[in-house]
Amino acid sequence: MNKIIFNPDKSSWATLTQRPKNKALADKKFISNIFNEVKKNGDLALEKYTYKYDGLKLKEFKLSQSQIKKSKNNLNNKLKESIIKAYKNIRKFHQSQKVEYKKILIQDGVKCWIESKPISKVGLYIPGGTAPLFSSVLMMGVPAQIANCDKVIICTPPNQNLHIQDEILFAAELCGIEDIYTIGGAQAIAAMAVGTETIPKVEKIFGPGNQYVTESKIYASLNGCAIDLPAGPSELLVVVDKNSNSKYVAADLLSQAEHGADSQVVLVSLSKNKIEDVIKEVDKQIKNLSRRKIIKRSLENSLLVYFDSKNDAANFINYYAPEHYIIHAIEEDFFVSSIVNAGSVFIGQFSPESAGDYISGTNHVLPTNGFAKQYSGVNLDSFYKKISFQKISKKGLMDLSENIKILAKAEKLDAHANAVSVRFKDEN
Amino acid sequence: MNKIIFNPDKSSWATLTQRPKNKALADKKFISNIFNEVKKNGDLALEKYTYKYDGLKLKEFKLSQSQIKKSKNNLNNKLKESIIKAYKNIRKFHQSQKVEYKKILIQDGVKCWIESKPISKVGLYIPGGTAPLFSSVLMMGVPAQIANCDKVIICTPPNQNLHIQDEILFAAELCGIEDIYTIGGAQAIAAMAVGTETIPKVEKIFGPGNQYVTESKIYASLNGCAIDLPAGPSELLVVVDKNSNSKYVAADLLSQAEHGADSQVVLVSLSKNKIEDVIKEVDKQIKNLSRRKIIKRSLENSLLVYFDSKNDAANFINYYAPEHYIIHAIEEDFFVSSIVNAGSVFIGQFSPESAGDYISGTNHVLPTNGFAKQYSGVNLDSFYKKISFQKISKKGLMDLSENIKILAKAEKLDAHANAVSVRFKDEN
Repeated sequence: MNKIIFNPDKSSWATLTQRPKNKALADKKFISNIFNEVKKNGDLALEKYTYKYDGLKLKEFKLSQSQIKKSKNNLNNKLKESIIKAYKNIRKFHQSQKVEYKKILIQDGVKCWIESKPISKVGLYIPGGTAPLFSSVLMMGVPAQIANCDKVIICTPPNQNLHIQDEILFAAELCGIEDIYTIGGAQAIAAMAVGTETIPKVEKIFGPGNQYVTESKIYASLNGCAIDLPAGPSELLVVVDKNSNSKYVAADLLSQAEHGADSQVVLVSLSKNKIEDVIKEVDKQIKNLSRRKIIKRSLENSLLVYFDSKNDAANFINYYAPEHYIIHAIEEDFFVSSIVNAGSVFIGQFSPESAGDYISGTNHVLPTNGFAKQYSGVNLDSFYKKISFQKISKKGLMDLSENIKILAKAEKLDAHANAVSVRFKDEN
Repeated sequence: MNKIIFNPDKSSWATLTQRPKNKALADKKFISNIFNEVKKNGDLALEKYTYKYDGLKLKEFKLSQSQIKKSKNNLNNKLKESIIKAYKNIRKFHQSQKVEYKKILIQDGVKCWIESKPISKVGLYIPGGTAPLFSSVLMMGVPAQIANCDKVIICTPPNQNLHIQDEILFAAELCGIEDIYTIGGAQAIAAMAVGTETIPKVEKIFGPGNQYVTESKIYASLNGCAIDLPAGPSELLVVVDKNSNSKYVAADLLSQAEHGADSQVVLVSLSKNKIEDVIKEVDKQIKNLSRRKIIKRSLENSLLVYFDSKNDAANFINYYAPEHYIIHAIEEDFFVSSIVNAGSVFIGQFSPESAGDYISGTNHVLPTNGFAKQYSGVNLDSFYKKISFQKISKKGLMDLSENIKILAKAEKLDAHANAVSVRFKDEN
C-alpha cells in the first residue's frame, strides 16, 4: 500500500482525490459506426459484431421461457435460498421508497399534484466474464418490477457454449423478466437504444460494463435514450480511529480491492498507529485470497490519510465523495451527520460493504468518481418519471388572471396574456 | 396551419411525431476550445469571449448586493406583487414535494434508510435577449432555496448597458440568491463547470439557452458536471372534442407558438368540425398578437390530427410524449388516467399553459422532444441526491453471514466472503 499522508493541506485535496486513470474509453467513431450499422441492418449487424468481436455464431438471440425456467434445476438449494433472501430484502427496501404525492390546493380553485409513472421500456445490461454478476440483476430488476415497467429486458453476453449462467436466469425469473437476449458489448447497447427486429428499443438503459459498454451508453444518452449513471471503477473509503478493529477494516478494504485493478480504497484515520496495524492485517489476509493479483494492483491506487482533526477528516471525506463509505470510527454519529457526499454509507463494525453488495436491501449501483456530489445511486425513482398535473376552476383562474397578464406582459409574451383574457372577455 | 391528418396508422406515427429540426448545434471543437481556455485563463478568458461574441467590455462580473437590492425600487408595485404571488405559489407546491424516508428494519438487526441531501453548489443559467425571463429564475431558484443548497449562483448576459433586468434581480433576491454574474453564452457554462477566480465551480447546471448554451451543457455533463435536462424547443399538445371551446383552444395553441419559431403545437381532435373551428379562431386571434411573425413560422410546424377512437388518440398522445398537454375534451378522467408520457398536464378549459408557466405552482422547466418518456421536469428532487445508509448489528450480520458467503463465492469474490467470516472467526 502507498505511503501515508499526514494532515494534507486543502490545497492538495484536488490532486490527492483524483481517481486512478480510467481505462481509455473506446473510440467514438468506432461506437457511432456500430450504432449506425445496428440501426441500418438490425439483427444482421448483431450477428456480425458478435462473430467479429466475441467469436460466437449466434442463431437465436432470445432465450425461450423454458430455457429461463429450467435454470433453477441446475442450482443448489442453498444458493437458491440465498438469492431468494437477497431478492426479498432488496424488494422490502425498494418498496419502502414508494412516494405518494398529495394533491395540493395552492389556492381556492387551483389544485396541483405530481404522479410518478413507470418508464415503459427499460433495458438492463449484465456483463459477462469469468464471474456471473447475478446480484446486479436483482439490484436493477427488483426496482423495475416494483415500479411496474411495461417491458424489462436483459442483454448479456453468453459464454463460449452460448450459455447464460443459471444464477442470472434464476434472478431474472424472480424479477419477472421474460426477455433475455444473449448479446453483449457495444452492439447490445446499440440494439437496446435503437431497436432491431428481435430486440425492442428501450427508453432507459441500466447497468455496468467495460469501456465499450460505457462509451456506448454515453453515445445512447446523447441520442435520445436515458442511462442510469456515468460509470467508473468502484471505490471505498473507510474512516477509523484508534479503537477500530484492524482485522475488520483490512477485510473491508480487501473486499473492495478485489473488484478490479482500477478499484480504489481509501483509509482515513484519526490514529497513526491504526494505519500501521491495518497495513499489517491487509498483508496477512491477502495471502488467502484467490484474487490477490488483482487486489495487489488495486492497492497500488490506495490512499492512506491521517488527520489530527475529525472535522478535517469529515471535510476531506465529503471532498472525495466516496461511492462506498464505511464508518469504523467510534464517533459514528458525528461521521453520519457530517456526510453529504457519498453513494452508500455503512455504519459501524458489523456493516461491511459485502452486506450492501448482496443482501441487506440497499442498491449497489452507485455513483463513482466523485459523482456522489450530484448523482444518486439507482433507487426506485430511477425507474419512474414524474408528471405534474393541474386543474384550475373558473374562479381559480379568475383570481390569478390579473397576475398572469402582468407577468406575461413583463416578459413580452402577449399571447400568454391573451390565453387568460380570452376566457373572461365575454364577461367584461 | 398544416393540413389535417385523419386516423393516422400507427406505422406513420414515428415520422409524424418527429419534432421540427432543432437548430444546428454548435461545433463541438468550438465548445471544447472555450472550456479549455476558461480552464487555463479563468476570468481573462471570460473577458475575452464576452468582448469577442457579445461586444461588451466587462470590468466586474459579479453584481454587488446593493445593485441586486435596489432593483425592486425600479419595479412597479403590481409587477412586484405578481412576482411575489408566483414565488409563493411555486414555493408552496415545491415544498409539498419534500419526502421523508423512514428507517426500515429489513430484518432483526438490519436497518436501512435513504436521506436526501442538497447538492452543495448549483448554477442557474438565465438567457438574455429582448424579454427578461425572470419566471425561470423562480422555477429554478425556489426549489434550490427549499432544498437548501449551500451555494446558488446565476449567470446571465447583461444588455448593452451592462445591466441585468430588474425583474431578474428581484426574483433572485426573493430566492435568496446573492451571487449573480453578468456573463452569458458558452463561456458562462464553462465558467460554472470548471470555475474561475470569480465564478465558483458548481456541481449541477440548470437552465435554458441557445444552441451554444445547450451544447456547452452537454459538454459539461460529459466532463463531471451534472445538468438538469436535455433541452429542445418548447411544445404543446391539446386534445379536444366537439364540445371544446374553440376560442380557448386557439388561444392556448397561440400562447405556445409565440415561444419561438421552432416551437410546435399539436391539436388532437375527436371531432372533424372542431379542427376547422379552431383554425378559424387562430386566424382571428393572431391578428392582435405582437409576436405574430414568430407565431406564423411556428404554426408551420403544427400538427392537426383527427381520431375516430379516443383510445387511438390516447395512444398517439403517449407516443408523442408532449412537454405540455392540455385536456379540453369533456372526457377528462379518461385522458388523465391514460396519460403516461408528458411533462405537465393541464386539465380542463380553465387550466391554460400560461397558468403553469408563471404562477399556479408547477415547474415550467420540462422535458421536450419526446424525453417525457424517460425524464421528469425540474422538481424539488432535482436539487438533491439520495444517499443510502445501513446499520447492522452483530446479530444482524450473523444471521446474514451464511447467505453472503454463499452469494460472494458464487460470484467468485472471496474477499467479499472473507469480510464476513473475519468478523466471526474468533467465535468458531
